[in-house]
Amino acid sequence: MTARGLTMQQLADANASAALNRLAGFEVTAAGGGSAEIVMMWHDGLTQYAGHLHAGMIAALLDTACGFAAATVVGGVTASHFSMNCLKPAVGDRFVAKGTTIQAGRKQIFARAELFAVNGDGEEALVATGETLLVPLNN
Amino acid sequence: MTARGLTMQQLADANASAALNRLAGFEVTAAGGGSAEIVMMWHDGLTQYAGHLHAGMIAALLDTACGFAAATVVGGVTASHFSMNCLKPAVGDRFVAKGTTIQAGRKQIFARAELFAVNGDGEEALVATGETLLVPLNN
Amino acid sequence: MTARGLTMQQLADANASAALNRLAGFEVTAAGGGSAEIVMMWHDGLTQYAGHLHAGMIAALLDTACGFAAATVVGGVTASHFSMNCLKPAVGDRFVAKGTTIQAGRKQIFARAELFAVNGDGEEALVATGETLLVPLNN
Amino acid sequence: MTARGLTMQQLADANASAALNRLAGFEVTAAGGGSAEIVMMWHDGLTQYAGHLHAGMIAALLDTACGFAAATVVGGVTASHFSMNCLKPAVGDRFVAKGTTIQAGRKQIFARAELFAVNGDGEEALVATGETLLVPLNN
Repeated sequence: MTARGLTMQQLADANASAALNRLAGFEVTAAGGGSAEIVMMWHDGLTQYAGHLHAGMIAALLDTACGFAAATVVGGVTASHFSMNCLKPAVGDRFVAKGTTIQAGRKQIFARAELFAVNGDGEEALVATGETLLVPLNN
Repeated sequence: MTARGLTMQQLADANASAALNRLAGFEVTAAGGGSAEIVMMWHDGLTQYAGHLHAGMIAALLDTACGFAAATVVGGVTASHFSMNCLKPAVGDRFVAKGTTIQAGRKQIFARAELFAVNGDGEEALVATGETLLVPLNN
Repeated sequence: MTARGLTMQQLADANASAALNRLAGFEVTAAGGGSAEIVMMWHDGLTQYAGHLHAGMIAALLDTACGFAAATVVGGVTASHFSMNCLKPAVGDRFVAKGTTIQAGRKQIFARAELFAVNGDGEEALVATGETLLVPLNN
Repeated sequence: MTARGLTMQQLADANASAALNRLAGFEVTAAGGGSAEIVMMWHDGLTQYAGHLHAGMIAALLDTACGFAAATVVGGVTASHFSMNCLKPAVGDRFVAKGTTIQAGRKQIFARAELFAVNGDGEEALVATGETLLVPLNN
């Protein structure tokens, strides 16, 4: 399977090719061995009514971390099911989404991710968790 | 409970107060009686790597439709759990998210939504479904 | 695809071949065209600590209704993801689970179900909703 | 919050008071500090059509492990949302469900669980993962 997995450079290219990822400033800070990490700096334009990070952006970060984690194992994937728990208001100087592959089957890949908000003092708080069920693109 | 529900005008104001909703051009086209409808025109800046609407924006539309549907019944709410099924590539001239309240309890509200892509001929295709579990803000 | 779909008799046979379905007294009361209905009479041995129907049996009914609904379209399936909302305490003289196929793709099938509790007067109450993502067995 | 948490003995009593848990032979093998473990020996009467453990029983084990894990922190709870991933056919000499509390808020508790199948040689395989959103009974 390793031969099919995407490298960190390939994932950085995929990230750069997605308009929303560019608009939001997603950065691939780690990728390999079934895991991936996405970082986003706080962005005033991406909030919901109360001034917290919008649920759609929380989903975008968790979903991307899951998809990139899976892609390091099986190559290109697309998500068919996504779920998330919103644990705390998503506010902070920056956000770090850490994705992990739970199981990579031939037809389906299960991945999960955690989203941390980091404040000015560098303290991390877990603000959301997510899960994604993915399908290999080349199957 | 009806006394606590938000009107379509109040929801349009809430929508206008959310930076991401403005950036994406969300419009509240219907709201009342436990249901709500959000419309968004196609936007080149909100895509994923393959040029389809980004999963994060699909989530934003479904989540907003669920939250606004619930708010017509119980007033302000916040989502604690969200899930979605991505049925087809989300491409079209515009998107319509239709939310419905399944059950509004004192502690929790269950809502679901469907996202339709509409092409140039006005044909609608169901591209995603979502569910949200919400908590009343004033509880 | 219709040629691959299972008939109501084939689903009744599948139901009879499952030990838990026999133990619980599941009955296939309708199946065809992407939908299926499962009925179970109240059973004192299947409760949780408070005397309501156990969440595991709610899941079993919803999951079976989803799987049988999908099987009428694509033949044998297996569930990879399941979720449910527990809306009300599940108590009643009998339970009716109604499953519907949302979309049947080549690799994945999305189905949803509703569980109704029926009391002695024949009044139905929606007690739970569920969703299942299924994979065709013969793919 | 610690004062409200249930002890392992109280959870064993709750387990014994649930008819399905007795029928299936659930045993509480660990509980405390936000975690709980449930063990069930293989039982021929609880299978689906292919002879594997029924999805409803997988759900029952995961849901119970989540609920008991949460109860060690906040006392009695009831589940409003449950989801699971079925990773592999659930077959084995016995099953071990390990639940963990992710976050215990005043209104809602998030918990997750993993289900392992153990074969005759004592080898564990992860066969399913689950998540539960719970509400405190005394709120």
